[in-house]
Amino acid sequence: MTSRRLAPVCLVLALSVPAGAEPPKVDYPTGYRQWAFVKSMVIYSDKNPLFGEFGGLHNLYANAEAMRAYTKGGTFPDGSVIVFDLLEAKDENGAWVGGDRKFIGVMRKDRGKYKATGGWGFEGFKGDSRTERMVTDASAQCFGCHQRQKDNDFVFSGYRP
Amino acid sequence: MTSRRLAPVCLVLALSVPAGAEPPKVDYPTGYRQWAFVKSMVIYSDKNPLFGEFGGLHNLYANAEAMRAYTKGGTFPDGSVIVFDLLEAKDENGAWVGGDRKFIGVMRKDRGKYKATGGWGFEGFKGDSRTERMVTDASAQCFGCHQRQKDNDFVFSGYRP
Repeated sequence: MTSRRLAPVCLVLALSVPAGAEPPKVDYPTGYRQWAFVKSMVIYSDKNPLFGEFGGLHNLYANAEAMRAYTKGGTFPDGSVIVFDLLEAKDENGAWVGGDRKFIGVMRKDRGKYKATGGWGFEGFKGDSRTERMVTDASAQCFGCHQRQKDNDFVFSGYRP
Repeated sequence: MTSRRLAPVCLVLALSVPAGAEPPKVDYPTGYRQWAFVKSMVIYSDKNPLFGEFGGLHNLYANAEAMRAYTKGGTFPDGSVIVFDLLEAKDENGAWVGGDRKFIGVMRKDRGKYKATGGWGFEGFKGDSRTERMVTDASAQCFGCHQRQKDNDFVFSGYRP
């Protein structure tokens, strides 16, 4: 009887993330270019402290779950995905236009899987690649900055209607 | 019998635009902020010849019909709508960010209604207004420039995947 009564407990343990293990990777956000558009921006000068890492033309996209929080406020629900799409900014005759893609950054909300980083999983994909991942330590590479935005559920951007 | 045989001809004439009449106005594109996003750009300096009229942060949106032509090529089908959304560009610490909306420009394809302007109707709506129209003479205010783009169905923008 003992082994039978323990079985459900073991199943639950097997399905949850073992202590100390890496959280699951965030998938490439297939189709994000057809998602709702959040806002754009150009970081064009090293006067901006983010220029080194994030200089370029920014376009932000959100899936339907994330759009609910962007437009109605409140916490982002599990399943929310936000894509930060960074293109080179090229100066063409007094205009900043988009060049090659530098990378996309992806945040995916899953409070069960990503407890250590505010309920968000983070990933980057280099250039136009769907497989060349950039994040090896989300706490250090991403959450170190994003935790400053705790009052906004760790998100920097706001929706521009 | 004569009057009966003429009836269908008269009906067709009544439904078409009378010669010399103004073409119908282009509607405000309700919901365009949730449409697919085409591309963004910042015109920031009077080095650019379009700065006076179009200086600012540009975001372009397309409905599903227009997206077919943007992504697969060919002529834009009737019903295509493209929205050019122009925000003030504010320089914040080495970054251009979006400020107040200056206006939106709207192109709507209907080859039957807008023959004189390449099959496209043109309109502008000031600021965030849905009623304050800006176009009184589409040929002079809009098509004068757009006709240079004849080989691209009179459209300037290309989709940035």
